[in-house]
Amino acid sequence: MPKAAEQAVHTLTPDECWDLLEGQSLGRLAIAAERVEIYPVNFLVQDRSIVFASGPGSKLMEIAQDPSVAFEVDGEVGDDLWSVVIHGRAERMAFDADIESSGILQHKGWHPTDKFSYVRISPLQITGRRFRRRESS
Amino acid sequence: MPKAAEQAVHTLTPDECWDLLEGQSLGRLAIAAERVEIYPVNFLVQDRSIVFASGPGSKLMEIAQDPSVAFEVDGEVGDDLWSVVIHGRAERMAFDADIESSGILQHKGWHPTDKFSYVRISPLQITGRRFRRRESS
Repeated sequence: MPKAAEQAVHTLTPDECWDLLEGQSLGRLAIAAERVEIYPVNFLVQDRSIVFASGPGSKLMEIAQDPSVAFEVDGEVGDDLWSVVIHGRAERMAFDADIESSGILQHKGWHPTDKFSYVRISPLQITGRRFRRRESS
Repeated sequence: MPKAAEQAVHTLTPDECWDLLEGQSLGRLAIAAERVEIYPVNFLVQDRSIVFASGPGSKLMEIAQDPSVAFEVDGEVGDDLWSVVIHGRAERMAFDADIESSGILQHKGWHPTDKFSYVRISPLQITGRRFRRRESS
């Protein structure tokens, strides 16, 4: 790797990753079900976990079958691009008190249908990178 | 599901999905490796397949180990949001003629480091949805 390029890729600390996630609302959830699946989800961050609402469909069944998920969010800051990936355990939130304190009930997702199940991803690992957009020379 | 919400979610045809992908360059690749992994990738569409460049890292090894992947792209058109998911088979492109005709050599990715391997996802299924952003009432 040329030195200039190497310097252009910056590994983010967990604190930097969480700071970036706080400003975002759209992530992508990957689940290793019978086949690997990927879903866009509207999320929020609470106490360094990821919370989102889900309809009654296959996502919930797949999480129950294999709760080990990956969750990715990316974005732009000035000329830089960044990507954060969480590996963690997804669980349907079972208790009303948990759901209420998570703030998810006040969180309007993009999807117009109602979603009455709530999922929390408890992270085992968070990694992130930030890099300068390649000049289109 | 209320009728208004049901009508607000529109299932895209494969043709509509491909039309939306043509205008995009950033997708997310999910791989069922030892653990499920998700990577942002700069891609292009060629002959109804997805082509992207890869560095020599773990992505390539994971694809060799299990080529069944999911690939997701989303975006906005006016007040609508859309998401397209491809399930398919990812393979490292072995022949120079394939690589050259794919157009990927002229495609500048965002990542500043050089990537000398090229991967094609041959789709087995493409699905997509478009929906109106929920009003924040």
